Amino acid sequence: MPAQTPAVRGHPTRLGTHVLADIVEVADPDRFEPDFLSAAFADALRAAGATVLRFVVQEFEPQGVSVLAVLAESHASLHTWPERRTVLVDVFACGAMSPKLVVDELAARLGRCEVRLHEVERHAGPA
Amino acid sequence: MPAQTPAVRGHPTRLGTHVLADIVEVADPDRFEPDFLSAAFADALRAAGATVLRFVVQEFEPQGVSVLAVLAESHASLHTWPERRTVLVDVFACGAMSPKLVVDELAARLGRCEVRLHEVERHAGPA
Repeated sequence: MPAQTPAVRGHPTRLGTHVLADIVEVADPDRFEPDFLSAAFADALRAAGATVLRFVVQEFEPQGVSVLAVLAESHASLHTWPERRTVLVDVFACGAMSPKLVVDELAARLGRCEVRLHEVERHAGPA
Repeated sequence: MPAQTPAVRGHPTRLGTHVLADIVEVADPDRFEPDFLSAAFADALRAAGATVLRFVVQEFEPQGVSVLAVLAESHASLHTWPERRTVLVDVFACGAMSPKLVVDELAARLGRCEVRLHEVERHAGPA
């Protein structure tokens, strides 16, 4: 990864923050349309300052979509369950980019919904 | 997503398990070679019974690689910090596939290393 990871030698180093967001009770069913949702996710990543290197959209039958983004800062993913009005997101970011901001930007584009966040600090071993 | 999610109406539903694995102190520097590592990750996914739909490999300068896999069961990611002998993995799986087994299969292919696991249950909102 490109980010530098200075640390006291022999001590674990925090490499970045991994945010898992369960976005539930999305009120508007139109927000699950795959083209809308993948564009909203790309916009949210850019609005949060992420550098998107690759962007993969996979639609499922009869419904649902998975979106994966390779970022200069690590990655982001999105999976939908329209029948349960649910979007599950994860954003892992090393460096200055805020993964929580990506979730906030996406949630703002989904209209009325409820966001449940889970944050995990990721570490390297001793140098 | 293709997996069905039966639930008592009005109650949150567990959609799957998200495993975050910090694989540290990888002893053999050759295991960080991007071609080896992406093949090992693909093999680990298949050995764990995952159905890989898309597989994206992004190399970084001067070193490091990110691998993202779109699965029928959700997704998996891998990022490396060779200078810190560290591989960070996440596997999110709905359905019968075990995300922890993917990590075990990958770790077995990395030789001597230490694995630190963090498991998070992911949920949908009420139907």
